[in-house]
Amino acid sequence: MNAPTDSPADSASSLSAASARAANVRLMIFDVDGILTDGSLHFGADGEVIKTFNVLDGHGIKLLQQSGVATAIISARQSPIVLRRATDLGIHHVFQGIHDKRSAFEQLLIQTNIAADACGFIGDDVIDLPILSRVGFAASVPNAHPEVRSRVHYVTQAGGGRGAARELCDFILRAQGNYETAIAPYLS
Amino acid sequence: MNAPTDSPADSASSLSAASARAANVRLMIFDVDGILTDGSLHFGADGEVIKTFNVLDGHGIKLLQQSGVATAIISARQSPIVLRRATDLGIHHVFQGIHDKRSAFEQLLIQTNIAADACGFIGDDVIDLPILSRVGFAASVPNAHPEVRSRVHYVTQAGGGRGAARELCDFILRAQGNYETAIAPYLS
Amino acid sequence: MNAPTDSPADSASSLSAASARAANVRLMIFDVDGILTDGSLHFGADGEVIKTFNVLDGHGIKLLQQSGVATAIISARQSPIVLRRATDLGIHHVFQGIHDKRSAFEQLLIQTNIAADACGFIGDDVIDLPILSRVGFAASVPNAHPEVRSRVHYVTQAGGGRGAARELCDFILRAQGNYETAIAPYLS
Amino acid sequence: MNAPTDSPADSASSLSAASARAANVRLMIFDVDGILTDGSLHFGADGEVIKTFNVLDGHGIKLLQQSGVATAIISARQSPIVLRRATDLGIHHVFQGIHDKRSAFEQLLIQTNIAADACGFIGDDVIDLPILSRVGFAASVPNAHPEVRSRVHYVTQAGGGRGAARELCDFILRAQGNYETAIAPYLS
Repeated sequence: MNAPTDSPADSASSLSAASARAANVRLMIFDVDGILTDGSLHFGADGEVIKTFNVLDGHGIKLLQQSGVATAIISARQSPIVLRRATDLGIHHVFQGIHDKRSAFEQLLIQTNIAADACGFIGDDVIDLPILSRVGFAASVPNAHPEVRSRVHYVTQAGGGRGAARELCDFILRAQGNYETAIAPYLS
Repeated sequence: MNAPTDSPADSASSLSAASARAANVRLMIFDVDGILTDGSLHFGADGEVIKTFNVLDGHGIKLLQQSGVATAIISARQSPIVLRRATDLGIHHVFQGIHDKRSAFEQLLIQTNIAADACGFIGDDVIDLPILSRVGFAASVPNAHPEVRSRVHYVTQAGGGRGAARELCDFILRAQGNYETAIAPYLS
Repeated sequence: MNAPTDSPADSASSLSAASARAANVRLMIFDVDGILTDGSLHFGADGEVIKTFNVLDGHGIKLLQQSGVATAIISARQSPIVLRRATDLGIHHVFQGIHDKRSAFEQLLIQTNIAADACGFIGDDVIDLPILSRVGFAASVPNAHPEVRSRVHYVTQAGGGRGAARELCDFILRAQGNYETAIAPYLS
Repeated sequence: MNAPTDSPADSASSLSAASARAANVRLMIFDVDGILTDGSLHFGADGEVIKTFNVLDGHGIKLLQQSGVATAIISARQSPIVLRRATDLGIHHVFQGIHDKRSAFEQLLIQTNIAADACGFIGDDVIDLPILSRVGFAASVPNAHPEVRSRVHYVTQAGGGRGAARELCDFILRAQGNYETAIAPYLS
């Protein structure tokens, strides 16, 4: 959001600009609810019992990691389920229960020694705006809050929890010229 | 529904009228199934085991509360899951297992000392009509029963459990001139 | 399906014919998976753990019962969850684990002393055709198997588990002239 | 994918070619996540707790088996839930936790003594391409990864977990001239 545009996020010029930004991403940060899930909160009597992730997303995140991009999670909610999924996916940096997302983001920058300009973030609610306004590459999903959708560089076509993260990973891989290499092992 | 109209609920004039009504809301009352959820009832052998809420709704309800609007739940069904979610969201007035919604509504008016004209209610089935016909601001969702959809001041675009409550909270915040203040902390 | 037609099930004439058939229904029989649910089978390691019903359907079935129409379930699968939901809804005739649906149907006719012509059935798969071809009023859902959709008197607009049963109950109530009476208590 | 075409998979000529390929299938292999499910991974704190299958699919797989086509599962993930569902459906060949799908496929060919040309496979992600490129009949779903969708002989209209497998089974039954026989018992 360093260079906000009035044109729709899916126009050719903004897509090209988004790709240029994605090319610089060395650390991709994911919000959880609404991004890695469709925003559903499955509650039992003692609180959240299930989170519904997507199988396409998982493979995309692994391909992105293998290409050399680091991955992280910053989530407003707190759940052992997220930790479990993050472990399965090899996501080492996990910040949960974060209501001031900006400070978690700054802590992550120090931990990883990566500049904000080399970070990407995908989120869906106003609470994500303080990070989205600082990263080099800001993304969101079609079912995000309108205030977020209108302020990011890239809006996925797939919904949160329906392949949005996979689409984003593919977009970064392409922008960095690593897509063909990533899928080559499966084409032989 | 004090001033029912024949024109569609989404026309400009009815939207303006709905906004005027929302401006007066001091207590917003939510039905649960079909509104805070998509109407799905997840049953195990011993009855309902999970309810699926939405993360966007939760944040909207908190922003509405912070702006000074009180919140309540009146639900025909009875579930400890609703109590848990209500506690998380800071909703203090929770009426469950209510088949005569009118008497629960009247009890709530006495508890809160708020007039019916200053209440909003969002519901989706005919059992909700006795309250919807009494409140100052009556709302519903696209997937509601037709008898309800045709009788309210405002129908959300988002479905129940898919952001309908968030859209409604934003609508009230705007109508009361509090929307910009509510999201300001996230825009700096 | 006593008088199969070539015209689409949703044309005005077939709708009128379906209504005439629905007017005679004294016993309405529901399939479960794909009708009272959207066809999803939620499995854990020990088999099915959850079935997802719909809140609108439940209220419709109760209104139909109150109008004097008996209700029953005939399901190919076997689950204690269905028994639980049926108990909640006051559905007394429950046949589960039925692979030869025809014999269960004939047993039900004897139990209730109701003729096939005075029965309605809503199902979604070819296994339901033997009953659908015998009842006076045969119904299905948009997401049913094509062989079924093309052979019934009425296809609901709402999907299975998304209000199809409610829509069907309302359709029967209207056809029998009992709809206004059913919703009257909520309109005062 | 022995004879890849540039024309869309749903054109009349490619549909006819796909049917010719399906006519030769003696062993149909199913991926699980995204095919027999919609790709959702329902996680609790200890990992995946539920998989959501579809009732229409189950009946289609049984009809296909009864017509003489063998069935198998090859899945990248590992879950006791899949084993349970496979047992219910009479699928004897189940390969799970398979990251190199090619070697599992070759092992299956030896076990069943069936040639690759007489196999069908339906998958949704790039990890499935090594099998999809070897079988006589390659299929996928609308919500598959684009690299897969563009490389198969047949893309179902129904989504994964929403009847895709049933549609595929019906397609094979028709291609082999066994469809009418399969549904005949239900039409009398």
